[in-house]
Amino acid sequence: MPKAEILDPQGQAVVRALGRLGVTGVSDVRQGKRFEIEADDTVTREDIQKMAEVLLANTVIEDFEIVDVEEIK
Amino acid sequence: MPKAEILDPQGQAVVRALGRLGVTGVSDVRQGKRFEIEADDTVTREDIQKMAEVLLANTVIEDFEIVDVEEIK
Repeated sequence: MPKAEILDPQGQAVVRALGRLGVTGVSDVRQGKRFEIEADDTVTREDIQKMAEVLLANTVIEDFEIVDVEEIK
Repeated sequence: MPKAEILDPQGQAVVRALGRLGVTGVSDVRQGKRFEIEADDTVTREDIQKMAEVLLANTVIEDFEIVDVEEIK
């Protein structure tokens, strides 16, 4: 997601558009990216961290979070 | 996130780039959008549902999920 201090024009555009939908109680909307990664056991958390830092996130303006999701077989 | 049957060229580009990072165990990557919405108690779940369907998601090619996150005061 964009870092807290980074202006988020897309999120602000959504907040403005909400008025037209009749929804008034929303104070902020922030838009970011979400990646779902399917990987086998050879891929470590450090691999995912490196992948996120190098390929998926722009760490100058974005923060990221890694969430483990086990597939139920 | 893109529906399962929808081709995800951005995700495929990441999978190809991973080889250059030396990460080989990743079978699939899917990229989607994530919105964080700050709202007061006047905003109902139905409001968020309508907002997602009308403004935030393209329901022809995307699925979406609403996750409640309580702010700890």
